[in-house]
Amino acid sequence: MVPKGFHPRSTKSQAADSPSEVELLRLIRHRAEGFKSPGLRLGIGDDCAILRPRPDEEIVVTTDLSLEGRHFRLDMHPPESVGHRTLARGLSDLAAMGARPLAAFLSLAVPPELTRNPRGRKTSHKSQNKSWTTRFYDGLFKLAAAHKTPLAGGDLAQFPQVVADIMLVGAVRRGKALLRNRARPGDLLYVTGSLGGSAAGLRRLEALAGKKIPASLEAFVKPHLWPEPRIAQGQWLARHGTATAAMDLSDGPSIDLARLCEESGVHAEIDAAALPVYSSAGFGATLEEALHGGEDYELLFTAPAERKLPRSIAGVPITQIGRIVRKSANRPPVTLLTTAGIIPLEPQGWQHFS
Amino acid sequence: MVPKGFHPRSTKSQAADSPSEVELLRLIRHRAEGFKSPGLRLGIGDDCAILRPRPDEEIVVTTDLSLEGRHFRLDMHPPESVGHRTLARGLSDLAAMGARPLAAFLSLAVPPELTRNPRGRKTSHKSQNKSWTTRFYDGLFKLAAAHKTPLAGGDLAQFPQVVADIMLVGAVRRGKALLRNRARPGDLLYVTGSLGGSAAGLRRLEALAGKKIPASLEAFVKPHLWPEPRIAQGQWLARHGTATAAMDLSDGPSIDLARLCEESGVHAEIDAAALPVYSSAGFGATLEEALHGGEDYELLFTAPAERKLPRSIAGVPITQIGRIVRKSANRPPVTLLTTAGIIPLEPQGWQHFS
Repeated sequence: MVPKGFHPRSTKSQAADSPSEVELLRLIRHRAEGFKSPGLRLGIGDDCAILRPRPDEEIVVTTDLSLEGRHFRLDMHPPESVGHRTLARGLSDLAAMGARPLAAFLSLAVPPELTRNPRGRKTSHKSQNKSWTTRFYDGLFKLAAAHKTPLAGGDLAQFPQVVADIMLVGAVRRGKALLRNRARPGDLLYVTGSLGGSAAGLRRLEALAGKKIPASLEAFVKPHLWPEPRIAQGQWLARHGTATAAMDLSDGPSIDLARLCEESGVHAEIDAAALPVYSSAGFGATLEEALHGGEDYELLFTAPAERKLPRSIAGVPITQIGRIVRKSANRPPVTLLTTAGIIPLEPQGWQHFS
Repeated sequence: MVPKGFHPRSTKSQAADSPSEVELLRLIRHRAEGFKSPGLRLGIGDDCAILRPRPDEEIVVTTDLSLEGRHFRLDMHPPESVGHRTLARGLSDLAAMGARPLAAFLSLAVPPELTRNPRGRKTSHKSQNKSWTTRFYDGLFKLAAAHKTPLAGGDLAQFPQVVADIMLVGAVRRGKALLRNRARPGDLLYVTGSLGGSAAGLRRLEALAGKKIPASLEAFVKPHLWPEPRIAQGQWLARHGTATAAMDLSDGPSIDLARLCEESGVHAEIDAAALPVYSSAGFGATLEEALHGGEDYELLFTAPAERKLPRSIAGVPITQIGRIVRKSANRPPVTLLTTAGIIPLEPQGWQHFS
């Protein structure tokens, strides 16, 4: 019996499934079922999962594609990191709404050889005896457990390249979701954590060209390989009614802030000197990486100037990086205040590997 | 400004987007926004969509991958049909739970050339002047409108092959969802509509080898190209408390009924002579296609023997095809009663194109 939710109809007939594939599906269902959640009434095993939000809640939903060669590279990212990052992208969208996760759904297409255990290799690394796909799920399940998020369904198929589509369903008190269209002139602009760490880490990984990450760099590349979605911080902002607008930084402030301004009908200024540029153990990100890097998955939010913000929320620093101003035809949507003067901040964004 | 929900972060930087791609994203958002729904509080444009079920409802969620070369072929399926079938697969899972659709989400990865309008072609067919992607959305939006299902988000990315991942969110009265694990010995077994039409249509399309479908065959291949998810029928069954168990026929009765039996802990018998084998205009499906075909997206359900069923629900015939019996170690899970005697019905299922 192949569990529905992860079922072989996308691949081929049940009769033709290889034992390892059926076994993989069983393992996924078994691992998913090991995690109980009050909001999940029915997980993998039927035509749909059934989620039960509280009566005073509404539902938020997001989907994100992660594509081999674009969002990750098999020769650069450990499989556990790919699983972690896939889920982190979706959780980060929930965080940006101030929602609590109800359930995750994963559609995964993989080449058949990535579902097989490596053979004929003697190694002391336990992870080396697992298939790429199992290690992908290891990374995903670990982050899911940290955020009490059950895997409630999805799809698994064979395909020439890896495609992972993550869907997250969350719940938030009715009318309390953080939106990106409510920023008002006079609001101050904040970010959680630090900026540019993901892009700076990626630069280091590219320089390694597939070679093993030396221990001295492991901490530095952490924001790239293991980004932490700001679920607790988003929920805090929604619960306290602190933020007027919020979004997550997936493409970097230069693109994402322009989107927030567009949706809110406002303009914004960033103080270059105020940006919390990532650094770790003597290495650092550049200002360009902080502004245009992307994939930091920090929260960008606005709050009224009179509102006093804590220095940190659930252990993550909060930094004021600028302010919202009235929209004006005479100036670009986002400007950067530097020691050399005021310059327009053009959306440059994130090239991934393309 | 690129709408979030369909945003270019999966493809490349905003600055690098081609005008046609940005235009495509705008058009999708515009078309999606043209469709208002009371259950959808916020659609494309923020980090997440916001759905508002009624306080007495729970949420059902399903995802389904549709892969080029596996679920459809570019040389065989019109783009509108691929869009229709992608959405139909998800809607059919909602139907199997007895749910009403709240919203759909689509992650679509396509080769860049499929987003461009064909150039240098003079043709009288208006559809020939649209890109493959636009025609895909035409088919998807048309079926979505027929089932009052707003497109509330998703993702769009460039990729060497077409990958479409559809996610459907529906709502159903608390505790009223149709499950597949509640069939009991003595229940009778029913299907909606007819069986084998999709497989028989596919066989004809394969024989055409990419040539235009002749008018005489258009009606015959309809169940394959334009399957109709049984949303109204599923809701009727849930509302009237008729069915003890239900699921949709995506892989064919031989696989799907075995799944229902496994989840319910029962066995089943099918009467071969009772099967509503598809026929149209003098052509017909075979018994094998009806039993093992799949992609018919009809509902398979059980009801107590004393329960009187109507001959049709919302215009679709209901046929009793067998019965649920007690599990026994002496017999296979599903048997077929034929004029030649009782034979085991082995799960053979659906080979798609693999």
